[in-house]
Amino acid sequence: MGKTFKKSEKSKGRLYPEYLVKEVDRCLKSFLKRYEDIPEELRNSIRYSIESSGKRFRPVLSLATAQSLGFKISHVMPTACAIEFIHTYSLIHDDLPAIDNDDLRRGRPTCHRQFGEDIAILTGDALFAESFNIILKDQIADPDIKLRVLDELISASGASGMVAGQIVDVCSTGSIIPKERLEYMHLNKTAKLITAAVRSSAILCNTGPQILKGLTEYGLNIGLAFQITDDILDITSNSVLTGKTQGKDILQLKSTYPHLWGLEESKKIAENKISKAINSVMDINIDSGLLVDIARFILIRKA
Amino acid sequence: MGKTFKKSEKSKGRLYPEYLVKEVDRCLKSFLKRYEDIPEELRNSIRYSIESSGKRFRPVLSLATAQSLGFKISHVMPTACAIEFIHTYSLIHDDLPAIDNDDLRRGRPTCHRQFGEDIAILTGDALFAESFNIILKDQIADPDIKLRVLDELISASGASGMVAGQIVDVCSTGSIIPKERLEYMHLNKTAKLITAAVRSSAILCNTGPQILKGLTEYGLNIGLAFQITDDILDITSNSVLTGKTQGKDILQLKSTYPHLWGLEESKKIAENKISKAINSVMDINIDSGLLVDIARFILIRKA
Repeated sequence: MGKTFKKSEKSKGRLYPEYLVKEVDRCLKSFLKRYEDIPEELRNSIRYSIESSGKRFRPVLSLATAQSLGFKISHVMPTACAIEFIHTYSLIHDDLPAIDNDDLRRGRPTCHRQFGEDIAILTGDALFAESFNIILKDQIADPDIKLRVLDELISASGASGMVAGQIVDVCSTGSIIPKERLEYMHLNKTAKLITAAVRSSAILCNTGPQILKGLTEYGLNIGLAFQITDDILDITSNSVLTGKTQGKDILQLKSTYPHLWGLEESKKIAENKISKAINSVMDINIDSGLLVDIARFILIRKA
Repeated sequence: MGKTFKKSEKSKGRLYPEYLVKEVDRCLKSFLKRYEDIPEELRNSIRYSIESSGKRFRPVLSLATAQSLGFKISHVMPTACAIEFIHTYSLIHDDLPAIDNDDLRRGRPTCHRQFGEDIAILTGDALFAESFNIILKDQIADPDIKLRVLDELISASGASGMVAGQIVDVCSTGSIIPKERLEYMHLNKTAKLITAAVRSSAILCNTGPQILKGLTEYGLNIGLAFQITDDILDITSNSVLTGKTQGKDILQLKSTYPHLWGLEESKKIAENKISKAINSVMDINIDSGLLVDIARFILIRKA
């Protein structure tokens, strides 16, 4: 018999749990210490890429999931940080001249602008490997649980996950794609890793199938909404807030939700997905307050 | 009590076990079938990269290790193929314009020459993730053994392994580096993954610490010798045999053994390492014949 959770009261003040960002930042910093003995050029580029200030959306989501299940954040912290490593690797490769050719990321020069393309490619490669290294070395869990966690992250980031989405993205740039292909792209490029952040945390907390199903629905819906709002922000926000070069999607003729559906309709689709996500976690026996806050935050975020 | 192995007789005929190459090729081909549902562009580039004919040195070494320990090759085949995935990923990224800028690999256009840089970067990323996917999904082993195998491969390919070697390589190109740094580069860039091919196989075969130590010595020494002979072949062989553009190290002013020690001295160093490798496996209770053959092959290979 599991415990019964009281539904949290309405959140007061800011929706996004900044205190969890601080915890993630602290832990990421501690992981960087282990790279004292690697070549200086790699150490510097890894540090530069990991230390840059982001909202740490995926690890925060992992920690919030653990809390919603009545666990301490330390129970899942290494895996949460490992997912930030994977996300950072994907951004570095995504920003490369041959892919999105971005100069700015999180308000600073992208990795290849700072260190050169060769170092950037290899830094991404290193971060991907090191993400799994963190889980192997630092995540405390039974071996079969650890293998399930690795499976979640590897499936979400491989040829049937993130890379599949990225491939569709690069192959679709400059042309209009059908809406189903756009949803496939978003699902794979963005939503699967976000879902894995939730699911891997739930697996570490020994969650049963029913709750895992609700959390998976939550993850997929906020993941899709996250990418839609990302595309909207590319049009409506500015570089100071996002830390990225704005308006690039239009310049590169990318297929996006605003491009295919228009701005207002895209906002409605995102709102609809957030509603679904919230219902998914309200329907299961967890302390869903923080997860609801994070879902709502996606709609109002400015960066 | 383990069994006692009869030392194999001197090998007759060719040193390199081509029949194992065929087994690896067959199994790699079967793994490619699972990519029916991924985007066509990625499926094609993965197939192109994996199907290209190579000597499959690392997986062959894994299979030979299993045989030397009295196990069937099927016992380690998925992990052997996973290592070929890692190796192929590293070649694709290594060949990129920003790194080695190679046009030719295994006698055909490199991945980026065939499919474009963006697809090549992402294909490498996918193969790296899929290597672990193969181990998770297809390698039969106890969970704790599987985690040890993953640890071997991830450590060998991460920031304290292959990527560290690659970083030193790109940062040293165009300048003379100290001999210790050259050995560090070879150890990390090449020898660690070759050693992991031997060690992961031995771990799957439940090998005890003493035999594992001997096999580790073997792996490190043939790994270093392999890279030295690679550098020698870059000078002495030709593109028809190696399937690569020849003489690139000199053109790119790369620090190599022939560059630092001269051709003859480099050959002696490689021979010395092969002797050490052979002694390591002759000294332990395994059927070392095939491993000895493979070690000797490194010195006489033409590609």
